Amino acid sequence: MTERATLGVAVIGTGKMGADHVRRIHEVVSGARVSAVVDVDAERAKTIAARVDGCTAYTDPASAMAAADVDAVLIASPGPAHEAALLQAFEHDLPVLCEKPLTPDAASALRVVEAEQRLGRRRAQVGFMRRYDTEYMKLKSLLETGQLGRPLMLHNRHRNAASPPFFTSSMLISDSVAHETDVTRWLLGHEITAVTVMRPTPSANAPDDLQDPQFVVFETDGGALADVEIFVNCGFGYQVQAEAVCERGTARIGDGHAMVTNMAGRWGGTIAQDFVERFADAYDREVQAWVDATRRGEVTGPSVWDGYAAAAVCEAGVRSLNEGGRMTVELVERPALYG
Amino acid sequence: MTERATLGVAVIGTGKMGADHVRRIHEVVSGARVSAVVDVDAERAKTIAARVDGCTAYTDPASAMAAADVDAVLIASPGPAHEAALLQAFEHDLPVLCEKPLTPDAASALRVVEAEQRLGRRRAQVGFMRRYDTEYMKLKSLLETGQLGRPLMLHNRHRNAASPPFFTSSMLISDSVAHETDVTRWLLGHEITAVTVMRPTPSANAPDDLQDPQFVVFETDGGALADVEIFVNCGFGYQVQAEAVCERGTARIGDGHAMVTNMAGRWGGTIAQDFVERFADAYDREVQAWVDATRRGEVTGPSVWDGYAAAAVCEAGVRSLNEGGRMTVELVERPALYG
Amino acid sequence: MTERATLGVAVIGTGKMGADHVRRIHEVVSGARVSAVVDVDAERAKTIAARVDGCTAYTDPASAMAAADVDAVLIASPGPAHEAALLQAFEHDLPVLCEKPLTPDAASALRVVEAEQRLGRRRAQVGFMRRYDTEYMKLKSLLETGQLGRPLMLHNRHRNAASPPFFTSSMLISDSVAHETDVTRWLLGHEITAVTVMRPTPSANAPDDLQDPQFVVFETDGGALADVEIFVNCGFGYQVQAEAVCERGTARIGDGHAMVTNMAGRWGGTIAQDFVERFADAYDREVQAWVDATRRGEVTGPSVWDGYAAAAVCEAGVRSLNEGGRMTVELVERPALYG
Amino acid sequence: MTERATLGVAVIGTGKMGADHVRRIHEVVSGARVSAVVDVDAERAKTIAARVDGCTAYTDPASAMAAADVDAVLIASPGPAHEAALLQAFEHDLPVLCEKPLTPDAASALRVVEAEQRLGRRRAQVGFMRRYDTEYMKLKSLLETGQLGRPLMLHNRHRNAASPPFFTSSMLISDSVAHETDVTRWLLGHEITAVTVMRPTPSANAPDDLQDPQFVVFETDGGALADVEIFVNCGFGYQVQAEAVCERGTARIGDGHAMVTNMAGRWGGTIAQDFVERFADAYDREVQAWVDATRRGEVTGPSVWDGYAAAAVCEAGVRSLNEGGRMTVELVERPALYG
Repeated sequence: MTERATLGVAVIGTGKMGADHVRRIHEVVSGARVSAVVDVDAERAKTIAARVDGCTAYTDPASAMAAADVDAVLIASPGPAHEAALLQAFEHDLPVLCEKPLTPDAASALRVVEAEQRLGRRRAQVGFMRRYDTEYMKLKSLLETGQLGRPLMLHNRHRNAASPPFFTSSMLISDSVAHETDVTRWLLGHEITAVTVMRPTPSANAPDDLQDPQFVVFETDGGALADVEIFVNCGFGYQVQAEAVCERGTARIGDGHAMVTNMAGRWGGTIAQDFVERFADAYDREVQAWVDATRRGEVTGPSVWDGYAAAAVCEAGVRSLNEGGRMTVELVERPALYG
Repeated sequence: MTERATLGVAVIGTGKMGADHVRRIHEVVSGARVSAVVDVDAERAKTIAARVDGCTAYTDPASAMAAADVDAVLIASPGPAHEAALLQAFEHDLPVLCEKPLTPDAASALRVVEAEQRLGRRRAQVGFMRRYDTEYMKLKSLLETGQLGRPLMLHNRHRNAASPPFFTSSMLISDSVAHETDVTRWLLGHEITAVTVMRPTPSANAPDDLQDPQFVVFETDGGALADVEIFVNCGFGYQVQAEAVCERGTARIGDGHAMVTNMAGRWGGTIAQDFVERFADAYDREVQAWVDATRRGEVTGPSVWDGYAAAAVCEAGVRSLNEGGRMTVELVERPALYG
Repeated sequence: MTERATLGVAVIGTGKMGADHVRRIHEVVSGARVSAVVDVDAERAKTIAARVDGCTAYTDPASAMAAADVDAVLIASPGPAHEAALLQAFEHDLPVLCEKPLTPDAASALRVVEAEQRLGRRRAQVGFMRRYDTEYMKLKSLLETGQLGRPLMLHNRHRNAASPPFFTSSMLISDSVAHETDVTRWLLGHEITAVTVMRPTPSANAPDDLQDPQFVVFETDGGALADVEIFVNCGFGYQVQAEAVCERGTARIGDGHAMVTNMAGRWGGTIAQDFVERFADAYDREVQAWVDATRRGEVTGPSVWDGYAAAAVCEAGVRSLNEGGRMTVELVERPALYG
Repeated sequence: MTERATLGVAVIGTGKMGADHVRRIHEVVSGARVSAVVDVDAERAKTIAARVDGCTAYTDPASAMAAADVDAVLIASPGPAHEAALLQAFEHDLPVLCEKPLTPDAASALRVVEAEQRLGRRRAQVGFMRRYDTEYMKLKSLLETGQLGRPLMLHNRHRNAASPPFFTSSMLISDSVAHETDVTRWLLGHEITAVTVMRPTPSANAPDDLQDPQFVVFETDGGALADVEIFVNCGFGYQVQAEAVCERGTARIGDGHAMVTNMAGRWGGTIAQDFVERFADAYDREVQAWVDATRRGEVTGPSVWDGYAAAAVCEAGVRSLNEGGRMTVELVERPALYG
């Protein structure tokens, strides 16, 4: 608990996620301040910067990273801009928290992995925030105790009330199931080696031409199977559940059964309506953990390797969705850096 | 509620299930009596018959069926003996309740279907007792209201504490998943058109050479998908769960969360240890419903067509287990009798 | 499992409960038949009798009890008629199942106790059917194992959607809490020694002048406390819950959390709407157990002493409601017959 | 979100709670720093101060409050020292967060109320942290919507695994039920007008001479009743539950049913083992809310009036425990300052 200097953070991208991270660092997180915000839209950058005393607005990441009061970078710009920003941060030798996806495809993600390898040490954390959700953490801890024996299967449910207008069938995999990709790898400690995406009849409540829901099966190099129900127009709310089936028992999270009411002939409770409500605490904990580790000179949390593996799995998944059948996932050899 | 004569039932087979049905008809069910028991083991038949006043022991089904005090037949002999007993009952024009499986394979099951067709009316009910479980009935009723919209997916879990010594990998499909085959067809109102069986790493707690657990995916002619986790050495108890995912909501049964205790650092409750504990009421209700319908001169409940379809799906499942990959299910055209 | 003769039952009273018991014995219960029905309304008696072959209608209990085909009596007439019917059954030396309340007050209940004592053996069972509910039975069994240590407190909830038009404030105690009186004595194995009834603000949804809800505290001779929330216009359904708090843990029943749905922003399920829905199985099991015991020549289940004690506690409760404060319960010495 | 200066906090008392608040402000809370710690034990004060850069150790509160870098005071010293520290903070015109109890008795609490009244504005917040627990907040929000109608009853459970060695029977009221006193007043929006404490047989697992558990009934000026089971040697964990019973429904919190496991014949999960585990987030949120309000120049949260009312209710409760029967609670007239 020795005092360390407050961490000056440059937030790249001031869209919904970026602006929310600015608010989080400013109001919630201890030990950090927003010293810079970056957006190609200069007005937008200025508006956000004005919310925080001593915060400077920039339109390009490189300038922000060069500023004396910037100690670390949080990348929340659109996915296609991540690679360049990450490489710049590496050049400036700055620690980074990069929102998911690491980059939009496996090839570019691999370039980031290679760039970090050249640094010879980890610099970047990828924003798979579910690893900071208390329920997922409890599940991970329980699995690590070995009480239940080895995990053999993992059943995942991922449901959104409604999809945004721009959502495509591929995005159910690359944008939504991307989370289960990471969760599966992290909880099981295995790499995913094959993906099969199946197509039930689409819901009449999904937009035309959207294949929603989908059912995904992952095979892993540890022999476990994971399945994912992804349903982004389920209508009733935002619900993320996981059940690990192990040799001696199972464990399930995500029921969200907190307050129980009796009324109008029914018992039960309310369902979260979006990921912000469901995972607000996980985001807070993720950023706090990143700030704390950074101030200690460490890099923890999901790595760029995790980002690359997720991208490769999602690519195979989208191929399976479009072409049908089982697709294998080919990863490069895992560098020692990611142990 | 007009009085009808007490139904005289011949119980064929006096193994565990048969003896239990004798007890059930004798002690639990209203409106029926056990007038005959049949077993190739004459001593066994006599021992069981002696438990019920006025009950005669036989060693062959045909003699029992010819007795004047036998109005109906309950077949609980081993599966390979079912076909002959069913055909005999049809000859004697007796109503039948036949334990699952209808017969051990699709070809013989089809012969039973054809024989009943020749009678021109339904005579037999197949013992898929889950249709009489209050939770499954609630789920079915809810789906029928249409409140949740069409079902798109059905997630099933089927877990036994430990498998009996004679259990083989194929029996996880043909003996255990047989229930989910019927449940899926009944709840969704669809025929199953393809089966894929996947093999996670076997549990270290399963006997050597037993592929346990398995993960099964059904495709249906209505476009819905159903998946089944079958795990017959889960160690912790007997647990059967189902979750229907529909266009506007989901419904889950089988949590078994009745009495909740707090003790020794844990909240929760006990898990049923076998199917007798879990489904005792369903068996009681099934036999009572069969007796009631029979006394009214009706045949209700799962039909021999349901038994045939289950056999065909299980055959495809066993092929998928052994050869890998997706297997289609080929059924003959559905006779009008099974509407 | 030796065969015994079918029990011929005379059902006294053919109101809602009586008619339901006729149906139950006729259609559900094994080993018994309705040979007589009795109602002062001759037409009503005939109508009900006509539903069962070989069932005779009577207008007075004594004639029915004298009939050759009557082996046992089920009293379901209004409470004020119970005492006379019970004493007549004792004269005819017939086993009796008497619906609750045993009689409307402690003095008359005591006369029944004394009459049975003169017989020198138990003849009557009182219809506290909750003792036959699977959840209450589980709770009782758990307490008897001693795993949780001695029970120290019992929290009860008793909620009805709406009260019938004739309901008075006193009836919340004498008619509704009567059940918790028995449940408390049975689960704890203690006599209730004092009652305090408290009056929260009445609900605006209760009829004018009805003190609803009420909150009742029982003290027992074993030192445990029990409390009862009785709320007969709760609006949302019929809900009966109990939580035993013991030295090393607690156990709760009555959540009724079977099927869980997700829909329209809420998770949860439906609540039973009346006692018939909630306790139908308990009634079936109660009458079957009475028939089975009677055919074995035994008397089991709640005794007339239990009926008398409940009446005495309810009388003290009504006094507490009307006069305020704590009222002690005075019972005569417990006869050895009720050991 | 305009930038405000970081709040310099003096933490008075460096026992378990005080040290934890130092850690909290240092590591978790945004916008504040620990500039001073105070303890009569100079060594202890220095040790704690050394954990935070720029933090000064003091042995008397007044010196700390006079320091230039102290903007606010958090009182976490033993209860008997609170009054003096509060009055000193008022003299220095510093905002205060005072751990519960406000003071050890109603008379001293009233002096603090009067002192704050003389200031003419609120300066102090009392540490009833349950108001910052997400479940209690959800319950409060639901009650405020009016969906369930007026609350008529509130059932509370407060269970600790084991009591500390110094715990007395009175402390079950003054230390433990103090929380339910505040929760009841806050959730219902009523003052408590009478208290009755009942004594079930003590648990054999409680220390000799400790009356544990106890059962408490509160009456309120709004006509609602609240009951509290307090059981500080329940053995199985730390569990705090509340159920509000309203005119049209009920709402229950505190089941703590997050991760659900199946293992070794049981379903369920773990119970928190102490208040730190159960309410850690509530403490974090409480202190953050106090810091945020203070930086905005506001005082929110539970007031010294709430602290005074709780003290008065607990005094009546201890009298009821010791003398038996119902005790009325006499409060002075509520000053306009506390609306």
